[in-house]
Amino acid sequence: MNKHAIGVLGASGYSGAELLRYLGPHPCIEVVWATADRNAGRKVGEVFGQLVELRELTFAPTDLAAAPDLDLAFLALPHGEAAEIGKQLAERGVLVVDLSADWRLRDAAAYEEWYGWTHPAPGSLGDWVYGLPELHRDRIAGSTAVANPGCYPTAAVLALAQALRAGVVDPDGIVIDAASGVSGAGRKVAEEYLFSELDGSYAAYRVGRHQHTPEIEQELGAAAGRDVALTFTPHLVPMARGLLTTCYARMSSDVDAVRNALEIAYKEEPFVHVLPAGTQPATKQVSGSNHALIAVEADARTRTAVVTCAIDNLGKGAAGQAVQNANLMLGLDEREGLGSTGVFP
Amino acid sequence: MNKHAIGVLGASGYSGAELLRYLGPHPCIEVVWATADRNAGRKVGEVFGQLVELRELTFAPTDLAAAPDLDLAFLALPHGEAAEIGKQLAERGVLVVDLSADWRLRDAAAYEEWYGWTHPAPGSLGDWVYGLPELHRDRIAGSTAVANPGCYPTAAVLALAQALRAGVVDPDGIVIDAASGVSGAGRKVAEEYLFSELDGSYAAYRVGRHQHTPEIEQELGAAAGRDVALTFTPHLVPMARGLLTTCYARMSSDVDAVRNALEIAYKEEPFVHVLPAGTQPATKQVSGSNHALIAVEADARTRTAVVTCAIDNLGKGAAGQAVQNANLMLGLDEREGLGSTGVFP
Amino acid sequence: MNKHAIGVLGASGYSGAELLRYLGPHPCIEVVWATADRNAGRKVGEVFGQLVELRELTFAPTDLAAAPDLDLAFLALPHGEAAEIGKQLAERGVLVVDLSADWRLRDAAAYEEWYGWTHPAPGSLGDWVYGLPELHRDRIAGSTAVANPGCYPTAAVLALAQALRAGVVDPDGIVIDAASGVSGAGRKVAEEYLFSELDGSYAAYRVGRHQHTPEIEQELGAAAGRDVALTFTPHLVPMARGLLTTCYARMSSDVDAVRNALEIAYKEEPFVHVLPAGTQPATKQVSGSNHALIAVEADARTRTAVVTCAIDNLGKGAAGQAVQNANLMLGLDEREGLGSTGVFP
Amino acid sequence: MNKHAIGVLGASGYSGAELLRYLGPHPCIEVVWATADRNAGRKVGEVFGQLVELRELTFAPTDLAAAPDLDLAFLALPHGEAAEIGKQLAERGVLVVDLSADWRLRDAAAYEEWYGWTHPAPGSLGDWVYGLPELHRDRIAGSTAVANPGCYPTAAVLALAQALRAGVVDPDGIVIDAASGVSGAGRKVAEEYLFSELDGSYAAYRVGRHQHTPEIEQELGAAAGRDVALTFTPHLVPMARGLLTTCYARMSSDVDAVRNALEIAYKEEPFVHVLPAGTQPATKQVSGSNHALIAVEADARTRTAVVTCAIDNLGKGAAGQAVQNANLMLGLDEREGLGSTGVFP
Repeated sequence: MNKHAIGVLGASGYSGAELLRYLGPHPCIEVVWATADRNAGRKVGEVFGQLVELRELTFAPTDLAAAPDLDLAFLALPHGEAAEIGKQLAERGVLVVDLSADWRLRDAAAYEEWYGWTHPAPGSLGDWVYGLPELHRDRIAGSTAVANPGCYPTAAVLALAQALRAGVVDPDGIVIDAASGVSGAGRKVAEEYLFSELDGSYAAYRVGRHQHTPEIEQELGAAAGRDVALTFTPHLVPMARGLLTTCYARMSSDVDAVRNALEIAYKEEPFVHVLPAGTQPATKQVSGSNHALIAVEADARTRTAVVTCAIDNLGKGAAGQAVQNANLMLGLDEREGLGSTGVFP
Repeated sequence: MNKHAIGVLGASGYSGAELLRYLGPHPCIEVVWATADRNAGRKVGEVFGQLVELRELTFAPTDLAAAPDLDLAFLALPHGEAAEIGKQLAERGVLVVDLSADWRLRDAAAYEEWYGWTHPAPGSLGDWVYGLPELHRDRIAGSTAVANPGCYPTAAVLALAQALRAGVVDPDGIVIDAASGVSGAGRKVAEEYLFSELDGSYAAYRVGRHQHTPEIEQELGAAAGRDVALTFTPHLVPMARGLLTTCYARMSSDVDAVRNALEIAYKEEPFVHVLPAGTQPATKQVSGSNHALIAVEADARTRTAVVTCAIDNLGKGAAGQAVQNANLMLGLDEREGLGSTGVFP
Repeated sequence: MNKHAIGVLGASGYSGAELLRYLGPHPCIEVVWATADRNAGRKVGEVFGQLVELRELTFAPTDLAAAPDLDLAFLALPHGEAAEIGKQLAERGVLVVDLSADWRLRDAAAYEEWYGWTHPAPGSLGDWVYGLPELHRDRIAGSTAVANPGCYPTAAVLALAQALRAGVVDPDGIVIDAASGVSGAGRKVAEEYLFSELDGSYAAYRVGRHQHTPEIEQELGAAAGRDVALTFTPHLVPMARGLLTTCYARMSSDVDAVRNALEIAYKEEPFVHVLPAGTQPATKQVSGSNHALIAVEADARTRTAVVTCAIDNLGKGAAGQAVQNANLMLGLDEREGLGSTGVFP
Repeated sequence: MNKHAIGVLGASGYSGAELLRYLGPHPCIEVVWATADRNAGRKVGEVFGQLVELRELTFAPTDLAAAPDLDLAFLALPHGEAAEIGKQLAERGVLVVDLSADWRLRDAAAYEEWYGWTHPAPGSLGDWVYGLPELHRDRIAGSTAVANPGCYPTAAVLALAQALRAGVVDPDGIVIDAASGVSGAGRKVAEEYLFSELDGSYAAYRVGRHQHTPEIEQELGAAAGRDVALTFTPHLVPMARGLLTTCYARMSSDVDAVRNALEIAYKEEPFVHVLPAGTQPATKQVSGSNHALIAVEADARTRTAVVTCAIDNLGKGAAGQAVQNANLMLGLDEREGLGSTGVFP
């Protein structure tokens, strides 16, 4: 079989590097174009000593005019840059998986409110499918343009959507408390992300105004069949990878009903696993993998379900999920190239 | 001035070591007795290379019959052991600050429910003062027996009590999401606390059943003037020290009313500081100190206040607060010996 | 093709878990027996949430009488236990890769001196091949019993053996300074390996008496063609994985001669890579992989070569190398199942 | 007593912040001027939330024309900037402790060779005293201009100088392998110092060409009474603070002679402690303090002494030592303000 010709645009950030790590040994894919403006002209092996297989590939500038023929492109570009490039690629007939936020929201006004950004093509927002396979597998498989979910939304929506669909938790009053490893901030060079600033430190950020809020509300609203407004607080944890959402929702009945709803929904899922009662997922268990681990507990006194979901923010929260989406779009087994389990300890 | 003769019982755990770190250079205190059953007969300097000043002191067995004359004793003993020893010391006229949970709850039934433990002297529970100086300073100063608050309750109660007192948040539906460094588990030797298990990992634990829940409810209930039932979820963060509570409560009016209530209440406090709007506390800022930093934000759409409070779990969450209480009980300036600020970076 | 039936003895320690991580997706191998006395009767998925593929496998007691038919067994047992079990398995005709130290040294007296242990079958020591493929590939491929190298010796020997063979460094006066992540100590439950003791701390240990010293001397002596006595100091680094040796040797000529010797020797090696001048390997680049990265620099003023070698102590330093050896013994491509590159960041 | 009026120039880097942490509660010192060009106009409390005592102080630009009257100034400025400012302050009669490298080397040619920098006032190099109190206490006390030692040189010289003075180790063939926490790189905003790049990673850097080499050689040469050329390799450890040197030197006699030389030399030292045989110092034991812990071991087979020395790179390796020097210059007890012991765990 001929391998699919694949491009990775923005390949020298953390999500880009993780894409290359997954794609290098992928049996049906060949990376023929990797762009990185900051590192253009350098070999992959110079920038990422660990990427032994792709080390002779040279980073190119992100210039579509110079792009080779591509079957599919992953966009790991900064927010705002992906909108235009994604549109052009889609128009050329290249399948696109966009890891930025530029095509995730249905409502152009939400980009104004939460991103302070006017979407350049609001009329095309409906052409993109939200790439969470466990909710939208069939639509993804038939799509040419997929908006890969954000890291927090992936874990929050996997935790709560099925309980809302089943009607066993209340869509009002939801609180989502989340924590992410530092790579979630990308490879941005800023004082606040220096090792010495963050080691041994835990803090909340963007309280009440994180841009993933409307994305979570959109997907949970769709699951609930009505509008959802919730409170979302992200935190930064002194670790490189890993993300956990701790989701609070009032229960209609009891904890077993909630756990049951999730177990049924994810029974056949290759990458989402509901843990037995009494067990909590740790981010380390999914580090380096595309898996998500979910636990369902409750405080019966306050009738509050507490659903936790652990993912690798660069795996199921970004590059792993993007590969899963690409596999679906290319007609491959969605597990292809995603066989690695968590690196522990 | 003669120094006060002080004992530290259970001095080779982490809270005990932190007590010795604070007490070694304390100008009005001399540690005359440090007990540690596991390390009895060894010098402090052998067990804790860092405690240069006290290195010639020898750990004794925890045997009250062999105790020297003491003005005040700190109990850093395991839960369940402190109840009896605390009672005996108090009966001898020794001032006692107990860092365990044994004398914190007013309601003996709560010990049955949350600790699975029958309190040996339920009738004496009322003799102990809950040692949070910012709420109970006068009673502590006049007391002979103080129950030092737990780490999570300290940060949770500092975050919410004053807003409840002021009536600006709703006592129903409170969610407290918290995260602690690993030293919060004490020096317990167990697989789950090994470095390789925890490094790079973040997880919730004891969801819906953590024993600090009734302690938080007791103090917030007192502040609200009515019973409070809330949902509390602790997490373990891969860092040695530091604790942050992220507290969610529905607002009666707006975020300024909540921030205002806290600013007024803590205006003169030497160890509790309300940060300006837009700033979040990081645990590292208070590492090694007795300070607490608080931020008040909100999601106006959901009318939910989000109050965060950072402390060092071994400082304001344990040993630092214990020294603050002891200073009050001994008639000293409560800041004595607590001058160190956070060790950053 | 039928898969080879494989056993992993001692499968619930860190090296055992890493073997399962590599073997689970290995295309030519099926794990039919995983033993773990402490966890016997539990499923793999209960003990290691991350090992999604093998989660239904049940840990058995390490009882050879109950062993299924095996083509090859990996021994990840404690030092001292592997000697007898390894001998019995070898006598049954099962191929054996022993990850312990029990069959690594040729000289039984060295076990007495460095391990304080009398080898039970000194006459059989010569039957085992030292499993460093880059030095002994042909002998490994034809062997039925392989002693998998220690983590420090792997990195030290890869750094210096080829320079000694080429005669470009002096076998006298070698200093090897090394540092390892904490998983190198195994999953031993002891106070000294608690997270809170080690986070933020770096220290040397077993100075002048680490048991890997004679193993390094044996292999470097073989490379030099004469006895070698060297000074070896290991350190513990606050990270879960990763190992770096910094090796000092007086040069006969200059740094280019040393780098050249290594470049020629490793030119075709799939897992050992000599970096360009001016670049240093970081342990993170090989985390989760079987790769080794080597840099050759020098202080020309003191005519001292400084050769650094980074590996994952659980990868090339243990389980990865064991799989590489097993592949050779089974007549497979030695890279089979070892395709993963380093997990970064 | 009137407090001494003190300036801290370059006060918003890590060494500067640590100076403020030590000086804030110092009983004989008042910080009247803190400069920070990047943060000029901001309050200390905005930049460093942990510095509660000095939070109302405002950072000024580093403009000597605007300086208030000062008794003593600490220079925590970048290399190259301190030379000129230090000279001007000294000429005004202000006592100066310079934490940069600008006045440490006697030999102006060494600045050319190792720093690629032409010293602006080579004729004045002899006016500055090298500020290692354990070697040069009397000269420091009588000096007006002190060059505070580098972090690596402090730990290397404390480990070896006394053994060289005593003639019990060979000045030839010395190897110094060292490892530092990341704050040793200062608060420099660069990709290589991001949390996600360094967490879980250990690597050597500037092999054979680190600029601290001539400084170590200068001081060890003075101790040996002859020129010394040695091999020095620094490493970066994933921790914020802490530094350990592992120093190798051939012994003239045996390990007891070496340990004895150090024990005698440091017997009365308040901040340098030789540990009992069999014990190794961990960097965590001195974190946040001005103490140094030293262990002396050997490999008797190779007649090599292995002397390890742990310090806090920001404490005894920078700000702590600078305060110790200032105390001596001001005629105070050199321990004043340096009472804090290591923050553990």
